[in-house]
Amino acid sequence: MNEHEVLDMIRASATQTAPAAGVAVGPGDDCAALSNGLLVTTDQLIAGRHFEPKEDLDLIARKAVARSVSDIAAMGGRPTWSVATGAIPSGTSTEYVKALCRAMHRWAEQWGCPMVGGDLATIEGPLVITVTVGGSAHPKRGPVLRSAACIGDRVYITGRLGGSLPSRRHLTFEPRIQEGWWLASTLGSSLHAMMDLSDGLGIDLARIAATSGVGIEIKSRLLPRNDGYDWRHAMSDGEDYELAFTVAAHEPVPDRCPITGTPITCVGRVISGEGCWVIDGTTKHDARGMGWAHR
Amino acid sequence: MNEHEVLDMIRASATQTAPAAGVAVGPGDDCAALSNGLLVTTDQLIAGRHFEPKEDLDLIARKAVARSVSDIAAMGGRPTWSVATGAIPSGTSTEYVKALCRAMHRWAEQWGCPMVGGDLATIEGPLVITVTVGGSAHPKRGPVLRSAACIGDRVYITGRLGGSLPSRRHLTFEPRIQEGWWLASTLGSSLHAMMDLSDGLGIDLARIAATSGVGIEIKSRLLPRNDGYDWRHAMSDGEDYELAFTVAAHEPVPDRCPITGTPITCVGRVISGEGCWVIDGTTKHDARGMGWAHR
Repeated sequence: MNEHEVLDMIRASATQTAPAAGVAVGPGDDCAALSNGLLVTTDQLIAGRHFEPKEDLDLIARKAVARSVSDIAAMGGRPTWSVATGAIPSGTSTEYVKALCRAMHRWAEQWGCPMVGGDLATIEGPLVITVTVGGSAHPKRGPVLRSAACIGDRVYITGRLGGSLPSRRHLTFEPRIQEGWWLASTLGSSLHAMMDLSDGLGIDLARIAATSGVGIEIKSRLLPRNDGYDWRHAMSDGEDYELAFTVAAHEPVPDRCPITGTPITCVGRVISGEGCWVIDGTTKHDARGMGWAHR
Repeated sequence: MNEHEVLDMIRASATQTAPAAGVAVGPGDDCAALSNGLLVTTDQLIAGRHFEPKEDLDLIARKAVARSVSDIAAMGGRPTWSVATGAIPSGTSTEYVKALCRAMHRWAEQWGCPMVGGDLATIEGPLVITVTVGGSAHPKRGPVLRSAACIGDRVYITGRLGGSLPSRRHLTFEPRIQEGWWLASTLGSSLHAMMDLSDGLGIDLARIAATSGVGIEIKSRLLPRNDGYDWRHAMSDGEDYELAFTVAAHEPVPDRCPITGTPITCVGRVISGEGCWVIDGTTKHDARGMGWAHR
């Protein structure tokens, strides 16, 4: 089963009915955005799929919370509360469950979204952790969607890309809450589209392009890369959880977030047409398949 | 592992830190209640544990949504949005997943909380569905907690109890949203404590008693029972998803909800002391263990 195919169906199914009262943005973006400014996102972490079962417990808890927090950051919002469920393999020690819950509480506190409720049950299968995070959209800018990229925009990336899995950064990344909020505050309506990078820059930018009805062109030499990884890794590795965003061309964008020091790099531009493309020297590559379609 | 033991630990862990800003009620009630009137609850349904894997797909979807909706009803609130995750056993047909998602959307719409987001992933294990529902507390009464029962209160139950599993009512119950909202509207501050009955009347009322610092005494002959089930079943069977609530003794309570026709029955009273007790003829039974501790 191809998950993206199925997710597409869910979206189609959701939009068969008229948009519900009070819902500004439904399935298909990083978060749902309700008309009262509430953002909501939910995500699951499954042992053997999103982490190794023997992985350090604190890092499992961290990633479970961080992935949903990152979705709030991707809307330019602030996380404010969270709830979680745990399907615990039968035979797991009480001490393990206790430590896991404590760690999740601690990470949720750390990112400003205290865990206010939850549910535990046993499972004859792998550990499954689900975290739902609620947040507030930026009061002036409102929620920053994927679908608002405009032809002529510059395309930017926070941080650096590539090698997230071998370097274990997929377990230790810092969700870009402060950067997202600062971008919404500083750029206001010139900040057009934004998302967080989970599946790979090629696939993820192709999503912004498709939902905005535009194309995106990246220059390989501009890509900010982690040491030891070339532009193909930067385009494809995934699980970077950096922000990708598009800004009106006339608007100046600093090369660092002044609050956190995180680098901000212009990597390309929004063009007419469709898809996502990488220009490497004189060669143009189709980047729509660059990434992990199964995560 | 005893789930209640673990849940108690989670609550303890959660309350080790000072209550977060904006959180009125944290873990331990049917829902979390935030100070802006937002109610949030999350629950999971696991194949082989909460339903048979071969169960009718529409009823699985229904129960997954209904359980969380019932938690909102138990606070006297109204459900307004929902998000869901599905861990789908690998090899499941796309048609099945599609139908499951559609059914969940339909039930969420039906109960006023359209599904605004979600996540799917595959699992090498049983189907796990998690539903988070958000709602609004009653604007005048506010959230109705478990912890506010007062000595002298009458104890009431909506509907009838017993035999939920053999009769399959655990799959088809109607969450008491209208009844809960009407009780909050009509009784206002005389409506003291409320919860929905999932684990069994004995265990659940003992929770109201413990968190309110009181005792509860039930008369077996007053218990509204489903045909073919005696008072012991009514006290213990669980999964009824009816509302149990306590009301100041001076306040008259109609014997039906005028909106839905659901019967309302006085079954006992709140006393000083602790625990939950059933008076059957001249015998007094400890009811704290009457129910399913492992659900």
